[in-house]
Amino acid sequence: MPKLKKVRVKRGNLVLEGYLMPKHAFSSEDIVVIKLKNGYNVGLKADEVEFLEEVEIESSEKKGGAEEGEITLIGTGGTIASFVEYSTGAVKPAMRSEDFLNYAPELNEIAQIKPLMLFNVFSEDMKPHYWTKLAEKCAEEIRNGAKGVVIAHGTDTMHYTSSALAFAVQNLTSPIILVGAQRSSDRPSSDAHMNLLSAVRVAKSDLGEVCVVMHATTSDDKCAIHRGTRVRKMHTSARDAFRSLNSEVLGYVDREGKVEIFPHARKRAEGDIILREKFSEDAALVYYYPGASSEILDFFADKYHAIVIMGTGLGHVGEDWRKRIKDITKDGKYIFITSQCLYGTTNLNVYSSGRELLKNGAIPLGDMLPEVALVKAMWTLANYDYEEVGKIMVKNIVGEVSERRFSPWLR
Amino acid sequence: MPKLKKVRVKRGNLVLEGYLMPKHAFSSEDIVVIKLKNGYNVGLKADEVEFLEEVEIESSEKKGGAEEGEITLIGTGGTIASFVEYSTGAVKPAMRSEDFLNYAPELNEIAQIKPLMLFNVFSEDMKPHYWTKLAEKCAEEIRNGAKGVVIAHGTDTMHYTSSALAFAVQNLTSPIILVGAQRSSDRPSSDAHMNLLSAVRVAKSDLGEVCVVMHATTSDDKCAIHRGTRVRKMHTSARDAFRSLNSEVLGYVDREGKVEIFPHARKRAEGDIILREKFSEDAALVYYYPGASSEILDFFADKYHAIVIMGTGLGHVGEDWRKRIKDITKDGKYIFITSQCLYGTTNLNVYSSGRELLKNGAIPLGDMLPEVALVKAMWTLANYDYEEVGKIMVKNIVGEVSERRFSPWLR
Repeated sequence: MPKLKKVRVKRGNLVLEGYLMPKHAFSSEDIVVIKLKNGYNVGLKADEVEFLEEVEIESSEKKGGAEEGEITLIGTGGTIASFVEYSTGAVKPAMRSEDFLNYAPELNEIAQIKPLMLFNVFSEDMKPHYWTKLAEKCAEEIRNGAKGVVIAHGTDTMHYTSSALAFAVQNLTSPIILVGAQRSSDRPSSDAHMNLLSAVRVAKSDLGEVCVVMHATTSDDKCAIHRGTRVRKMHTSARDAFRSLNSEVLGYVDREGKVEIFPHARKRAEGDIILREKFSEDAALVYYYPGASSEILDFFADKYHAIVIMGTGLGHVGEDWRKRIKDITKDGKYIFITSQCLYGTTNLNVYSSGRELLKNGAIPLGDMLPEVALVKAMWTLANYDYEEVGKIMVKNIVGEVSERRFSPWLR
Repeated sequence: MPKLKKVRVKRGNLVLEGYLMPKHAFSSEDIVVIKLKNGYNVGLKADEVEFLEEVEIESSEKKGGAEEGEITLIGTGGTIASFVEYSTGAVKPAMRSEDFLNYAPELNEIAQIKPLMLFNVFSEDMKPHYWTKLAEKCAEEIRNGAKGVVIAHGTDTMHYTSSALAFAVQNLTSPIILVGAQRSSDRPSSDAHMNLLSAVRVAKSDLGEVCVVMHATTSDDKCAIHRGTRVRKMHTSARDAFRSLNSEVLGYVDREGKVEIFPHARKRAEGDIILREKFSEDAALVYYYPGASSEILDFFADKYHAIVIMGTGLGHVGEDWRKRIKDITKDGKYIFITSQCLYGTTNLNVYSSGRELLKNGAIPLGDMLPEVALVKAMWTLANYDYEEVGKIMVKNIVGEVSERRFSPWLR
């Protein structure tokens, strides 16, 4: 654990109070960084600063905060655990698990934190085998008594990982909370600080789901709690990039740390968690567009057993694709239909082209998000008999799809 | 032109006023359909209805409405020109160009309408060669004096078509307005009526752009005018499915028909339109996701000269894809980067994986929508020298991208 100090410093007429930020691998020796109460960092030239007061903070670990329950904080890489390398302006990943704790010293006052660095990849480099590793580590921590698990994750593919964990670790006796940052943690405008604090607070709550906790608005007024299977990164850079689609958010954490959880959120389960952590790479996601040759579909059908198509509107594809789908499903492969609209539900009963798709064996997935459908297909292929895959895909397992009669496969 | 009648009818104690709807191919003989002032249709049993008053409407054509300017209304198929086949509940396309005029008899009072049916396909069956046909027809109509062109189009791929026309028909002396319906035109909740009326009103305005006009909200209070290169269908079924992304709407048409156009909209151009109507099918759109094999990228690179990738976050892809992109661009092919977030802009300068993409020859497309990038690539390949394609792609042609220094290709 890094040593934490609350300080009061003076530079000229300016007096500032806050936490003295520990040095990290890329810190300048001649700069003192103070994290103010509002979460912003201020950097001051070391030789211009006079220290008026320094108090070493006892972490809740030392204080015996175990009655609050221990929270495991897993680092996986990404912006939330990264620094700006000032020489190049580039963002570099943190090297040590303690590093990202440094940025929110107050964490130690909220909960007893057990930091651990599982791996260190940018989230665009995530692969299904990392989801397996993460699921196993979450299961291990929860079974060993962690009252909650917080995963610091790159935002690019955080929603893929959250849905993967939702399928892989079920009957959650402790919540698994993914959190990230859209701005690196030592930029003044970083959202890392508030997101991380909010995530730990949600991890201590009575929630029993895999969630994503991120800024709810572009200002610092609250964080939203999103269901892991209903969330999507909808903006490349905004702080409130993450949105719940086709589903209400599960709750909010306000600036003061008050956690509000809505009634439709699942509570902590009883008993033991259920771990089904395997993922198959025998599924693919394909985008349909006007002029997309059916040879594209043929390529995917040759290579994969389950193909999730992002169709247009209610879940449509062009005539040549509709015809080819008949042959592909006859070969015993699965064609799943989602919509590139993202919002709303598939419905293949409205138009004749939709009904042709149904007749040709395509399976519509209702209001399931395309990325979630892909992850679920990878998970279902690895954990169920091949004949069962279609039925599992249309069934609601962890809140990923609204159970309506959107599919003849649902009875 | 169908004969239009304003009627007042009585059924029991109920007195209704409105337009008597003409029969169409799927009409029941024993049902009288009245379109009320609020745009809703009411169906009454013919033998229970007493006609109190019938007035035949003179269309503006007959009245010599030409001073208002003639608007060409082009049918291409889709829900806006479709009927519910009551025997099966299926939605069938309209067969005649007059049919979709029947659903908004008031059109004849707003403008002199020249209806024509160019083709009849569901929009999921649209292909680039249809865009060419449409562009040629729009050019012909505008050059022959049409004061505006309204295209009734299926909603699934309307945003692909709108961006295709924006590139293909430039220097617009008359606007080209695409309009659709999310509910078929003889359902009581249809949005066809208000959308069509609003579109014709925008076609008469001083706008000089290709636009999409659709419901702005889920109620019937106003329609939004979207720039054709900035709009996307964001919901499978809602009336307000169409949204402007990374750009403000160009204006609104309210319930009373008042057209408000904002200052950033382009006005009608002077001189002659510029027609570049060809599209190449040598471009493709590919969705990146965790676990996506680089063999997918290889397949597309073998088959196409321009590949638009929907990357994660700021425009990232995994390590194996980054490495392969180097070889592909060395082979002289184009790799364009957009974001699957949809909102926001690509930025490959923030993270090392992004800078690797830049170094390997990938070309980021800023805040251009992925579908628009695909259509633009198809258009650029067909209308410019191959060596120029990269430069044209990053340049703002018709409002499809914000001109910032997002790309080293922009000087």
